Amino acid sequence: MSVAVITRLGRMTRWEPGTAKRLQEAALELFATRGFEQTTATEIAQSVGLTERTFFRHFSDKREVLFQGQQQLTEAFLAGVQSAPEDASPMAVVASALRAATALFPDERRSHSRRRQSVIDQNPALQERERHKLASIATLLADALRERGVDELAATLAAESGVTVFRTAFARWLREDEQRSLTDLVDEVLHELLALARH
Amino acid sequence: MSVAVITRLGRMTRWEPGTAKRLQEAALELFATRGFEQTTATEIAQSVGLTERTFFRHFSDKREVLFQGQQQLTEAFLAGVQSAPEDASPMAVVASALRAATALFPDERRSHSRRRQSVIDQNPALQERERHKLASIATLLADALRERGVDELAATLAAESGVTVFRTAFARWLREDEQRSLTDLVDEVLHELLALARH
Repeated sequence: MSVAVITRLGRMTRWEPGTAKRLQEAALELFATRGFEQTTATEIAQSVGLTERTFFRHFSDKREVLFQGQQQLTEAFLAGVQSAPEDASPMAVVASALRAATALFPDERRSHSRRRQSVIDQNPALQERERHKLASIATLLADALRERGVDELAATLAAESGVTVFRTAFARWLREDEQRSLTDLVDEVLHELLALARH
Repeated sequence: MSVAVITRLGRMTRWEPGTAKRLQEAALELFATRGFEQTTATEIAQSVGLTERTFFRHFSDKREVLFQGQQQLTEAFLAGVQSAPEDASPMAVVASALRAATALFPDERRSHSRRRQSVIDQNPALQERERHKLASIATLLADALRERGVDELAATLAAESGVTVFRTAFARWLREDEQRSLTDLVDEVLHELLALARH
């Protein structure tokens, strides 16, 4: 692709919505075929006719292409805490947070999420980043529970349990033969967790 | 210290028990005063009159000084699974695993564990290593539960809950003003987790 074409495409994107999404799709494709380590931000941008500069207007680095959704996911969890009835038990608040979070993952997103996960599964540093993401969400969720007056220990445990349910249900949702929605899977996993504690 | 003295001390350690322990204590001291990144394996060894070669006979790198106990901890969890009665519920098996694991941390070890934790708290890469350690233990614990015939989902959730209880109780045990034993704290945290699920 000539420099002129790349520049022209680069200019076009200023008005075009979904540039971040295009970069994200291109990145997933390259990470999957060449490997995460072997792919540069420049290559990602160029593969969809964009410049490196455009890439860095959307993402701080190539890793963040995979973790851009963290803030939105965190906000969804916290919005779910807010929307729970005032007298809800800690686990009922967590259930509300889980419902809000799962709403971000309709079935249309499953194929994208599967491709993202297969990139992460192949790279220990990305797996650590994912663990860190979920640990941060658990911390913020516990803070939000404490702000509702839940005592410290109960808040920590309810938040950690919520993140465990999310992670477990999410992993099932991504399985190749899985047809159920993330919402159904979260319900099932949460139900199983509560049943376990009762026996 | 002269090379001759270092060599002599190095030789002595062949017969001396507790070389790994001496290196570990020296490492913690240096990590705490100079910082983890700023300390080399050679400096750790030399600070107790040992050679770099001796250091590497005991540890693959300086980070492993902090994580050497992982295998012993994992084995304790798994031994606790083995020793649970055959008809124990998944959470009862996990409780047995927790009891076996906490036996590794009598009160005499608290001061050492606190110093280790303060090194880890100052370094994000070490925090990730610690998360990875606990995630690995959860995976092996889940496998051990499945081998007892617990179904996959219940095994995963019980194992994750067990590790959450351990991590939470352990963090409390390390608090400056905490006097209770790790065993008592694990009991309290496990009890709280089970109570949460019942409301």
